[in-house]
Amino acid sequence: MSCLCLCGFFGGAFMEKAFAYSLFPNDVLKSSNCRETKSRFSSEMANLRSLFSPRHMLVLSVALNVSLVLKIIQQRKNRREKVSGIYVEKPKDAQIAEESQIEASSIQNMHPTPSPMAVNGEDADDGRNVINLDHGDPTMYERYWQEMGDKTTVVIPGWQFTSYFSDAGNLCWFLEPELAKEIARLHKVVGNAITEGRYIVVGTGSSQLFQAALYAFTANNASEPFSVVSAAPYYSSYPAATDCLKSGLYKWGGDAHNFTKTGPYIELVTSPNNPDGFVRQSVVNRSGGILVHDLAYYWPQYTPITSAADYELMLFTVSKSTGHAGMRIGWALVKDPSIAEKMVKYIELSTIGVSKDSQLRAAKVLKVVSDSCGTAARPRENFFGYCHQLMAERWKLLREAVKQSGIFSLPEFEPGFCNFFQCLFEPLPAFAWLKCEDGIEDCESFLKSHNIWTRSGRHFGVSPSYVRVSMLDRDRTFGCFVKRLSQIRL
Amino acid sequence: MSCLCLCGFFGGAFMEKAFAYSLFPNDVLKSSNCRETKSRFSSEMANLRSLFSPRHMLVLSVALNVSLVLKIIQQRKNRREKVSGIYVEKPKDAQIAEESQIEASSIQNMHPTPSPMAVNGEDADDGRNVINLDHGDPTMYERYWQEMGDKTTVVIPGWQFTSYFSDAGNLCWFLEPELAKEIARLHKVVGNAITEGRYIVVGTGSSQLFQAALYAFTANNASEPFSVVSAAPYYSSYPAATDCLKSGLYKWGGDAHNFTKTGPYIELVTSPNNPDGFVRQSVVNRSGGILVHDLAYYWPQYTPITSAADYELMLFTVSKSTGHAGMRIGWALVKDPSIAEKMVKYIELSTIGVSKDSQLRAAKVLKVVSDSCGTAARPRENFFGYCHQLMAERWKLLREAVKQSGIFSLPEFEPGFCNFFQCLFEPLPAFAWLKCEDGIEDCESFLKSHNIWTRSGRHFGVSPSYVRVSMLDRDRTFGCFVKRLSQIRL
Repeated sequence: MSCLCLCGFFGGAFMEKAFAYSLFPNDVLKSSNCRETKSRFSSEMANLRSLFSPRHMLVLSVALNVSLVLKIIQQRKNRREKVSGIYVEKPKDAQIAEESQIEASSIQNMHPTPSPMAVNGEDADDGRNVINLDHGDPTMYERYWQEMGDKTTVVIPGWQFTSYFSDAGNLCWFLEPELAKEIARLHKVVGNAITEGRYIVVGTGSSQLFQAALYAFTANNASEPFSVVSAAPYYSSYPAATDCLKSGLYKWGGDAHNFTKTGPYIELVTSPNNPDGFVRQSVVNRSGGILVHDLAYYWPQYTPITSAADYELMLFTVSKSTGHAGMRIGWALVKDPSIAEKMVKYIELSTIGVSKDSQLRAAKVLKVVSDSCGTAARPRENFFGYCHQLMAERWKLLREAVKQSGIFSLPEFEPGFCNFFQCLFEPLPAFAWLKCEDGIEDCESFLKSHNIWTRSGRHFGVSPSYVRVSMLDRDRTFGCFVKRLSQIRL
Repeated sequence: MSCLCLCGFFGGAFMEKAFAYSLFPNDVLKSSNCRETKSRFSSEMANLRSLFSPRHMLVLSVALNVSLVLKIIQQRKNRREKVSGIYVEKPKDAQIAEESQIEASSIQNMHPTPSPMAVNGEDADDGRNVINLDHGDPTMYERYWQEMGDKTTVVIPGWQFTSYFSDAGNLCWFLEPELAKEIARLHKVVGNAITEGRYIVVGTGSSQLFQAALYAFTANNASEPFSVVSAAPYYSSYPAATDCLKSGLYKWGGDAHNFTKTGPYIELVTSPNNPDGFVRQSVVNRSGGILVHDLAYYWPQYTPITSAADYELMLFTVSKSTGHAGMRIGWALVKDPSIAEKMVKYIELSTIGVSKDSQLRAAKVLKVVSDSCGTAARPRENFFGYCHQLMAERWKLLREAVKQSGIFSLPEFEPGFCNFFQCLFEPLPAFAWLKCEDGIEDCESFLKSHNIWTRSGRHFGVSPSYVRVSMLDRDRTFGCFVKRLSQIRL
């Protein structure tokens, strides 16, 4: 290597002279105003001529070529490393090793002498490693984005985003215009929601927008707190997120099916539903009721897109649509400008806006997703096609495992016609709503005894014989999970 | 250009043959298993030998050198363009034009026929353009970061951050380890806060951490809501942020000077204070009281660093330390692990963590700030030195303008010895706490009539004869402001 470096150095020094001599000697000499310099230069040139015959020159020139070619190769290598990051793109082996480390968060080792696990989950799973599918961590999506390479890489210079403002003239003054544009475009491409005549409010994930919506509908000097209800099984965070500050504006009212209290209320409609994946409508149906539609999972990898949703207030998030949970970016489509304005006020009071770095990144990711649905994209690039296939494979494996074990059951779904894919298919939810049969009352504890962590039905307002299981973890974790599940017997 | 490309192409084709021939012919030929290929290759080589004398070869080789050198130059140019952005770094002129556009948010045109403003505020200010210094938008810092070029540029590939988790083993599981490291390092370099034995909790700006702190101290089944107090003039957002959800856990209790109510309380101590810039201690001093220290402005560009702060719970933010308000990154240093844990719980409930993209960027920015304080950095690069000088110049100009006008007054500060700069200086606050004299009762309205937007003392719990004025806007806005202020007469 040092030899090559020397060769490059020598070649470089020679090159400067050779350029001056053979390529544009007159210009160089003309540009020199000093007679002395000119004369010294001419004399050096004469020495060079006598020193190097054409054969000498050829040998040197070839050496120079080699050094320059090596330099270009080195530069290309460096650039590849730089683009992919602190972020340095690892060689394939290192990437797999790193992934295994990351997976430690899903497959947690709870005993002092860890045993290695096979990548495909085929062997070496002694059942002692914890498989954590409690959270809906969408790491499944990592592989698609890795395959897309640099397409969604963002570069943010240090001087960007010193201001709180993104678009001072917009009702949502902290919304990056580029993100607004890509949100509207993606909904048009997918056909899952109407954006015309809606205000877009960006939030730090849809959790913040859920709270902003509660604030917006209730901060109006009502004589009593609004009841916040949702049909069980409902998203497990709703009760705690509603009641954590003991707000005088609103109060958790429990299962919408059993809601009989008079007075103002807000019904949360999650469709497809978290945890069970069913498409939902409101159940209270009382006049004057307010509906908030959480449509986080209304994307074609999970469920048929049967029509463009057209509700008063709809929530979405990149966490479940593109799999970028770490960005913390969600958005609301809001009909009523005064509600949108109050939501903006809430976000202003609680976090003075939303990370612009993540908005920028989200805009780029949404753009690439929309582009991938176009006719110009290769079939494997189609984001929803790719993810739908992955979900279909996973659900097939899970249903097989459940059948093999014989002590669990899963929801059965009616197929629906998807306007996006132009075909009929059954929902493929982001969570499996698993039920323990055969008299097992506490499914969470039962699975925990097999080192599979899930979330009990209790948290969703129903029986503990149910658990929610994430379907969005990395391939290796999911592979281990179905393998282990299939072997469980009473 | 096309000539050069051809030259490069020809050179490249030639190079492949020349390599095979003169550098490692035997290896190449040995590796060829096919007799036919070998024979064709030898025959081509013979043709080449007859075609090119050493002189021919030299001419070709020099041409190749030229093409390779040009390629390297082009690659370097491309890389420079790529690094600086989506975000392509604009040519100088375009940058200035863009900056003028951005400034439209601070200098808002409120009448139909706008008149252009001079960059230095020397002329063409007909007084009709609105100068908006109501918010503390820290756009002043943009210039420093522009001068630092690519040092804080971050590159984030599309597959990064699909997980909610940053460090599953950490109490604050959504805190990026790199950011934690750089926060601790910067406090050590500056000497403004003790981090040893503290838990770091990251938040979506310090606003979210303020609310997380309220939750953490009060979510304990107390029989009555905690009173939240702060000495007037207090930060204008405290009352609304405390009371917006009508929490049953806590309630705004007003000016700490007048706080006489019995029962549990939390005192917010902002030091240096927003809006008036004075260094503060708690004023209630009752046993059992809880203190939250907002130290957003305890940095050497604003105030002498007299000692390392050592309180129970301290809040900081990049918005005011490095000027990156758009990142929405703040952090808390917390002594009590159970309080830190509850703060984490609050952030989990309200936003399920904090943007990882911005944490990554914040880590890089803090690193560059710490590096800039080292002996290896050039004096102009020293972040705090640079910003301190800027603040000193601005305060000098402001005091001159106030003197010239004769109808305003400003706080006077005692100088203090700064351990960081190792010298004595007077505080240079991020806001000017301006008072209208000569019987002007509503200073905000008075300045508004001169198209200068500020925030009335009313919002800070004191007389409307005061206003808060941001000192952190861009040079041009600040220049216009002091010029216009100096010309105001009764």
